[in-house]
Parts: sequence; C-alpha cells; structure tokens
Amino acid sequence: MPVYRLQIAYDGTDFHGYAAQPGLPTVQGVLEEALTRRLGPVSTVVAGRTDAGVHARGQVVSFSLERPTDPDLLVRALNRMLPDSIVVRSCEPAADDFDARFSATSRSYRYRVLATTLRDPFEHRYSWHVPEPLDTAAMRQAAAAFIGEHDFASFCRRAEGRSTVRTVLASDWMADGRFLEYRVTATSFCHQMVRSLVALMVEVGRGRVDADAMPAILEARDRAAAKGAAPPHGLFLWSVGYD
Amino acid sequence: MPVYRLQIAYDGTDFHGYAAQPGLPTVQGVLEEALTRRLGPVSTVVAGRTDAGVHARGQVVSFSLERPTDPDLLVRALNRMLPDSIVVRSCEPAADDFDARFSATSRSYRYRVLATTLRDPFEHRYSWHVPEPLDTAAMRQAAAAFIGEHDFASFCRRAEGRSTVRTVLASDWMADGRFLEYRVTATSFCHQMVRSLVALMVEVGRGRVDADAMPAILEARDRAAAKGAAPPHGLFLWSVGYD
Repeated sequence: MPVYRLQIAYDGTDFHGYAAQPGLPTVQGVLEEALTRRLGPVSTVVAGRTDAGVHARGQVVSFSLERPTDPDLLVRALNRMLPDSIVVRSCEPAADDFDARFSATSRSYRYRVLATTLRDPFEHRYSWHVPEPLDTAAMRQAAAAFIGEHDFASFCRRAEGRSTVRTVLASDWMADGRFLEYRVTATSFCHQMVRSLVALMVEVGRGRVDADAMPAILEARDRAAAKGAAPPHGLFLWSVGYD
Repeated sequence: MPVYRLQIAYDGTDFHGYAAQPGLPTVQGVLEEALTRRLGPVSTVVAGRTDAGVHARGQVVSFSLERPTDPDLLVRALNRMLPDSIVVRSCEPAADDFDARFSATSRSYRYRVLATTLRDPFEHRYSWHVPEPLDTAAMRQAAAAFIGEHDFASFCRRAEGRSTVRTVLASDWMADGRFLEYRVTATSFCHQMVRSLVALMVEVGRGRVDADAMPAILEARDRAAAKGAAPPHGLFLWSVGYD
C-alpha cells in the first residue's frame, strides 16, 4: 500500500481544532472530506493535533492508498476543494512504514506575543496582545530552564496517568520587530504544554514571577504551580522533524 | 465647539463597510456607539468611506463636542469598548473648522497581491491571491499612465452624474517579498476606482491587456472598457493627507 506525506498549513481561527469531531468544523474533517472526494475513503494520521484556534505552518499528515496517485495532481485538486484557511503545501511519496505521528522525532512550535501598547487589528488572529512592558532578558532566562528532560506535569492538561516527561531540545524568546516570539522544539509535547509555558513566562516578563522559580515549578508537578494557558491564537505548529 | 481628530485602523473583513447601515455591522456604527457611550450622542465625519471587506491603516475621523475631553483617556476608553478588529491609534484636538473629509487634500491606498503559486492561509484576508506569473514591468508602465488629471469614468461605479475627473499624484507597483503592492495617492477617488485600476493592471500583468492601452481606456469614459473590480480584501486605505 503506497504511503503519502502531506505538508499542510492552516489558520486555526475558524476550526474546532485539528481532530475530527462530529458536527463541528475541524481541519481533519475538512481535509479527509476533500481526500475522500478525490480518492475514495481515506483515513489520515497527523503529526501534532492542534487545539481550537491554534494555527499550523508545517503540519504533517500521512495516509496510505490501495493504488498510487500522482502527488502534484493531488495537491492541485485538494487546494481547489479546500477553503482559503487551509492549504496543502506539498505531497510526497513516503516509505511504507512512514507514520506522521510515530515517525516524528521532534516538533517545533512558535508563539507570537504582540508587545505594543496598542493592539493591531491585522494581528489579533495571529498573536497575543500583551500591552505591558516585558522583561525579555528574564523571559529568556526562564525559557532556558526548560531545556533538557523534565517532568512537565505542571504544564500538562489531561495527563490521564500517562507520562508527562518530555525532552525539550530548544527553548528561547526572540525579538522580531513589534513581536516577541517563543520558539520551542521538543521530541513531543503534552496537552497545552506550550501555551502553559508561555503564560508562565509572560508572568516572568511582567515581573510577577521570578525567572529563577522555573526549576521549583517543574518539581512541583502540579498544574496549580503554573499560571494557566496563554490564548490559542498566538500559537503555531511550525515544523515537524523526521530522521 | 471643540473638534477632535481620530486616527483609526480596522480589519474590514467582518464589516459591511465603513458607513453606518441600519441592522448591519459597520465600522461607523460600532465606533459611534462607543463614542456615544463615553461622551453622549456624537456624529462623525470620515475621510474615506471604505466598502465591505476593505481595510484601513490610517483612516481619519472627526467630530465636535460641546465640552472638551481628554484625548488620551478617550483613546483608552474607546479601545476597551471596541472589538479587536478596530483600534483607535490616536486622538488629537483639531482646528474648529477641521473636517476629516473636506479638509483632506489627498488619500493614499495600497493594494496587496500575493503573487505565489500556492495561497497562504494567513494572508487570505489581506491580499488577492493571483497564482499566474505577472509581468511587473508592464504593470508599472500601466500604473504610470494614470498619474495626473484624468477623467476616470471608466473606473468609477455609481458616478451618478457627478464629475469623475480626479488627480492622481502617485501610482506605482512595488515588489515586497512574495507580494506585489500597488501604491496610489490622489486628491480623492471615485467609487471602486482603486480596485478597478488594480483589476485592469493585473490583466496587463497576465499579458491579456497591453500596457500601452491605458490612455485609450481612460478616453473611452466607459466602465465596460475596464475589467471589473479586484476583490475588496486586498485593499487598504493607508493614509490621508491634510495641509
């Protein structure tokens, strides 16, 4: 059975998240409907399920077919069917055992904070507006504390008894014009982990939490030790790594 | 009566244009409701009425009050009441005879064309996606033909017997990364003039209309000589000039 790998991007604003839910608009629902119209029934596997309102630049989806198809024609056909809020950027044949989720060795997310006094009507779908001055140096110090293998239970929703130990490969804030952007890469993430890290680090930037407190908050292994979750609309699944 | 001048920006996507219409969401309707909640009944004058779906970066609005108000406090109060899609960027006291519309000596618009094969889900609200290759040199040649005083009847909707003679001060296309941007300044514009010029010049870029044909299309003074109107979502009222 030939296996294919799609790279897709979407504006998550108008979707109830990536994962299909009966009767609700979801990215998976819309994508599988388009695939099925073109190829017959297709079920897909995704690298990183995103929550409602979260965006993706380099999401990866895999599926297998009974017969080969032309990848370039498929890209064009899907983009004609899909709404403006989703685009298929590429389709490539993959190894027989490729699985967008289980073959992935890392995921990279970016979170955009608009750090200006006034909000910007053209950025409100794609960033979190934080009008207070932020101490970027303190935020960078806090971000560095998450690199390495840690138990992220304090930053995980719906852990449901599964391990919350994760390995963070990169974690830093960058200044990008009017924006502060958090860039984080890990082998995998637990639910709402990036948004929970961002909410805490913005509190560090505001001077309400000490940058040195990160190890203790990790060690607490208690969601109450963190500061909730930053809004979904600032978050982008940026890329997925495979060996 | 003290007069004030607001500069506002808005994402026009979810509005039925600037001008108030009973029972429909409009920028003027939402803005005047917020002003009235703060200051009592206020009626405003706008520099450039924008159509449904058209955006503004530097729209100017004027109004007069019976008693003076603190401009900075007003900006903060309005931005707390207004939706994320509208922001008041500034408020300044103005001369007694200032009128956002009649005092304006020029208006500048920008129109963004996304000139890539694939669409971009994060730009679809703010640009027109034209996937075909475009001849930028021919488009620039066409744009230059509109500079000066001309009768723009071929590019005006709803002329209704009024003069369609306008003076264009600047008209050019710029390449800005993946975007082609049309920048045009005129003393004033007739209805749908920028979008009609853009639609024609994109046809020039596609090679379907000759760049040398602009003077003849102007001279025709007939809307049928043009090529309809480009979609509203690529258009931004960029700034308004006052002496």
